Order: sequence, then C-alpha cells, then structure tokens
Amino acid sequence: MKTTAENPYTIGLERDPANFIALSPLTFLERAASVWPERTAIVHGTIRRDWAETYRRCRMLAGALRGRGIGNGDTVAMIAANTPELFEAHFGVPLCGAVLNTINTRLDADTIAFILGHGDAKLLITDREFSSTVKKALARLGRAIQVIDIDDPQFGEGDLLGEKDYEALLQEAAHTEFSVAMPEDEWQAISLNYTSGTTGNPKGVVYHHRGAYLNAVSNALSWHLDEDTTYLWTLPMFHCNGWCFPWTMALVAGTSVFLRHTRAERILAAIRTEAVTHFCAASVVLNMINNAAPELKAGIRHGVKVMTGGAPPPASVIAGMERMGWDVTHAYGLTESYGPVVQCVWRDSWNALDLD
Amino acid sequence: MKTTAENPYTIGLERDPANFIALSPLTFLERAASVWPERTAIVHGTIRRDWAETYRRCRMLAGALRGRGIGNGDTVAMIAANTPELFEAHFGVPLCGAVLNTINTRLDADTIAFILGHGDAKLLITDREFSSTVKKALARLGRAIQVIDIDDPQFGEGDLLGEKDYEALLQEAAHTEFSVAMPEDEWQAISLNYTSGTTGNPKGVVYHHRGAYLNAVSNALSWHLDEDTTYLWTLPMFHCNGWCFPWTMALVAGTSVFLRHTRAERILAAIRTEAVTHFCAASVVLNMINNAAPELKAGIRHGVKVMTGGAPPPASVIAGMERMGWDVTHAYGLTESYGPVVQCVWRDSWNALDLD
Repeated sequence: MKTTAENPYTIGLERDPANFIALSPLTFLERAASVWPERTAIVHGTIRRDWAETYRRCRMLAGALRGRGIGNGDTVAMIAANTPELFEAHFGVPLCGAVLNTINTRLDADTIAFILGHGDAKLLITDREFSSTVKKALARLGRAIQVIDIDDPQFGEGDLLGEKDYEALLQEAAHTEFSVAMPEDEWQAISLNYTSGTTGNPKGVVYHHRGAYLNAVSNALSWHLDEDTTYLWTLPMFHCNGWCFPWTMALVAGTSVFLRHTRAERILAAIRTEAVTHFCAASVVLNMINNAAPELKAGIRHGVKVMTGGAPPPASVIAGMERMGWDVTHAYGLTESYGPVVQCVWRDSWNALDLD
Repeated sequence: MKTTAENPYTIGLERDPANFIALSPLTFLERAASVWPERTAIVHGTIRRDWAETYRRCRMLAGALRGRGIGNGDTVAMIAANTPELFEAHFGVPLCGAVLNTINTRLDADTIAFILGHGDAKLLITDREFSSTVKKALARLGRAIQVIDIDDPQFGEGDLLGEKDYEALLQEAAHTEFSVAMPEDEWQAISLNYTSGTTGNPKGVVYHHRGAYLNAVSNALSWHLDEDTTYLWTLPMFHCNGWCFPWTMALVAGTSVFLRHTRAERILAAIRTEAVTHFCAASVVLNMINNAAPELKAGIRHGVKVMTGGAPPPASVIAGMERMGWDVTHAYGLTESYGPVVQCVWRDSWNALDLD
C-alpha cells in the first residue's frame, strides 16, 4: 500500500496528534452525564444523585484540588469506607491531573505512615471512622500534609482530624467553573495502589489511564453490564480501585449502591430495597450471606450476579447461592493487573451436569 | 508521586515494550477460539463452522498469503458478497501483516480498476457472481495481479477468473503451521476502504488495528452483545468493514449468519430458522421487510434488534417493526469513523409516549 505522504487520497493511517484521543475512563463520566444525565448514579442511605450531579461534584473536587496547588502527577491519598466520596475521587482526583492513592483501611499506623511518605501524598482525605489510626500515622509521617475529613452524616463516630470536611472542600470550587482537561497521554498515572507488603514494606503499583479504561471495558463486556445495572459496593474500593468498577459504572451509566460495613443483614437489605443486580465479594462474604438467617433473605425474588475472586468458594456456598437463583462467576486477578484478569466462563454443556 | 527511576517499589507506570500488547481485533479471534472453541461462528446455508475451525482457516489463509510473498503493508483486495470467505479475510489478511481492501460490488469496471491500481493490490480474491465486471477491471488495470476465485457451492453462476479458488488457496498452507504474530504497533493498517467517490475518484480511508479494536468494543457495549448473539449479515461487509462487525462477532464469540442477497424472503427465512437476534440494515431494507407479505413474517416469535444508519426510517416502518416486537436503534457514522459513531440512545421517559 502506498504511504500517506505520496498518496493524497489515503487518509487516516498515521497517528495525528490533533485528532488523537487518549484512552481514559474520565471520558466515561463525561459521556454518562451527557447521555444519561437523569439516571441515578449514586445511592447512599437517603442520598441519591444522578450522573449530571455526580459529574458536577467530581469537577468541583478537581477544581478545589487545583485551587490548592495540586496538579499533574501529585498524589492525593484517601482512607475511606465505600462511600460516594471515594467513588467521586476516582474521577475528581485524576480530572485535575493528580494520582489517587486509596489506602487499605485495615492497615496499622506505621504502614499508613510509610505509604503516605513513600507515595509523597500532598493531601489526605480521611473518613472519621478511621481517625484513631490515622491520627497516629500523621504523627509518624514527620511532615505537614493537607488533611480533609469525610464526615458522613450517616456515620457520626470518630474524631475530625482535618482543617475542613469534604463537602466544604467542594465548596471551594463552587464559584469557579473548572474546565476539564482530559489527559493527553493515556500512559499517564491515574492511581497508585500499595500491595499488602507481606514480604516487607508495601509495594506501590501505578495504574495508567489506558489500563483503567481497558479493564473497565473488560468488566462491562465480560459481565454483560448496561445502564440497568445496579451495583452494590461490597468489594472495597481501596482494593485495586474496586477492580476498576467505579470507572466501569460510569462506562455503563449504572447505579452504585454504597455500603459502609460488609454485614450480611445490610447486604441483603440493600439487595432487596435497591434491587441490586450485581456485586463482587470475597468467598468469605458469600459464606456469610449463605449462612444468614432465612428471614434476612426473604423478599429477594430477582436474580443477582456475583463475582468472586481469589480462592473459589466452597461447593456448599455456590449451591446455596444457586438455590437463591443467584449466578456466581469466579475470577482471578492481582493488584498489578488492575483487578480481575481471568474469569471462569460458563459452558453450555455444564448446564446438563448435576450440582456436585 | 516519585518517578519509577528513583523508586524501586513503584512499578507499572512506564510503557514497557516487553509487556506492551497492541490493541488489535485479531486478539478477539484468538480468544474466541480459546474460550469458546465449540460455539458456532459461521452459518452459511448448509455450512456450519465453530470458532476453533474458523481460527484454523484464518491462519491457513494467512499462511497461504505469506507463502505467496504477501506481508506487512501489502494490500489484498476482495470483491465478494457477504460470505464466510470475506469474514475470514478480515482476520486472515491482517494475520499475515497485510491490509484488507474490500471493494463495493456495485462499482463499475473503471472504478474497480482505479481502486486496484491506487491501493496497489498484490492479490485479488473475487466472487464469480461479479466476474463480468471484474474481468473488465482486470483488463483495464494494465498490470498482472494474482487472482483467486470464490466459488461458493451455494451459488454456481459466473466465470472463474483466477488461477485457483479460495479453498485451494487455503490448502497451500495445509501442511505448514502458520505462527501467528500479532502486530507490534497498534497504529498499523488493518484495512483500506474507498469511499464512493461522488466528488471525483474514490478516496481511500485506512483503518488501523487500534481503531478497529475500539469500534468493535463500542458495538458490543452499546448494543449489549454477548456469546448468545446471532448476527445476520444484511449490511455489506465491503461497507466500512461491515461497521466493524466481523471483529465485533469475534469479540463476543457470537454466530454470524451469512446472506448473499438482501431480499425480504431470505432475510425473514434466516431470522426464523437461525433465530437471528441482531442485524444492521439501511432504511430501505427495513422498508422492504416491513412491506413483505404476512406469510413471510409468520413464525418469527422472538424479538430482533435492528440497527439502521444514515437517514432515519419513516415512522410507518418503525411502527411496523415495533408491532413485530423488534427494537430499532438509529445510528450515524461515516467511512472515516469506522462505521457507526453516534447512536440514538433510548430514554426511559420515551416509553410513556405514544408511537407518533
């Protein structure tokens, strides 16, 4: 084939910087807000927000961070439960060019101090539920850092450690229109996730926009998600960015139902009242649901799809789920692979096999 | 955040050539054959082939082309109806590094000769249905070119023009194991499509592997396709590579039902006997189906999803489709955008509106 240079009729082959669009999951949020502005994005107790409002709040977070001098390549750390603030940060932090470092809430003060220091965090957003540990970690960090509290009205315990809370942070950008700039380079970092450090100090894994985009697409395709998906946040968002599901939910413009504590009665209540269609959970959580009292399971008549990772659940747990009419998919992944990377795909011929 | 160079704990940020995987729709074929080897890929009259066999045949095509000295950046042209050969060429031609140039079967001999010359085709695969025009085009081309016939056992008309037929071409690679090499550069050309040339000679548009991958993903996500999809080939594959649907079907490991002639009775018979779930068609084809005799429509009880592009169908056609329980989605695109690029997404609030 003739090359473009010598062939005026042939267009489109060469990567044209003027037309190049970087792969970034931030484009999913913009699209969800544009195509489905009134669809529900977020359900957290009595709070319900649509995609238009979620997009506006994410831009406010980006604008507030930018106003505080945070920009390209800076780290914003977060110690939070599965609440809307952590979901919004998956978009708001990278929208200002920064890198989101979600920290496992179960780590001790020394380890958190190590991560804040090693990741060079410029600002920490922390939920008051974890204040007693985080206070110690900040003392051990040995340098000043901007601290913002998450003061969830649906959870009033724990000290406030920061200068203001998350809602007040957003208000810093209330009167400025933040102009969203998508990354020019799809290999730019979007998040920083530390492994548990079983063999020494935690190791940091950097996710780029391209990888986050592709894994979100892979989640949606392999689990057949669409705008009617209602996803329950049982899997911690601090774990591999919740297997990239914050970005996946923006891609499909589905609804996220948040859950601060992973307890069987709360999971089952959320599934019943919000008609949850999908959730991800470790085998131990499935076991807990399976063993829950029958009255907690009553009234759930719709099918639910469950993805579980790591060790496969015992046969009795899978049998229990199937009796409830739930589909269990087994996946495997690791921090370095943005979460799930292989999935056990059901074969038609298995339908004829007996349960054992 | 500290950079990788100074930070031994931080991995994954930089594009590592050793771990880089180019975005290419050829990976979909490999995956379909690996995950769903026994699922039906191709239905053409009495011919049925699964994904394992389809993958094997595509590799044989690549091996045969390679054996004839065709490789990176060479153009393989094709003048074909919607048959399995054209589908396989969407994989087999780029698997040897070459570029697939599908030519509109309705063009005249002068225009076909122009395209073969301009695109610098090294080899032409041509269906005998179009022999009378192609024979003239080859005479006008003014240089020798390798010619292979498609001799469809289900269509026996027209001269044979080439040295051998497509099945014999595949046999050239029957005893060599072709080692598949995915492209290292995702911006490499995968296909070359000429526009109709309403304002002069046809203009060539080059598609790259990255774009074909992304548009195939977009088709699957926006139309919610999965491995239970049965897609009817009403839209010509020579038109923007059938809106990237050959690659889309490999992505979801669905079934393609082929159709040489777009006639209402054949479309409706295929939909009934093969339980077709999806097809794409111009407004005029929908009109033809809508006006078909009621006995042709009898016995189709399942819902069918239809995507139509360009001018929207008249309200009476949409109403007729809805009475049959079919969903019509309107999309728009152009050759330069790999086919459909915008889609009219249904809003829940429209369910309450009356048909007019």
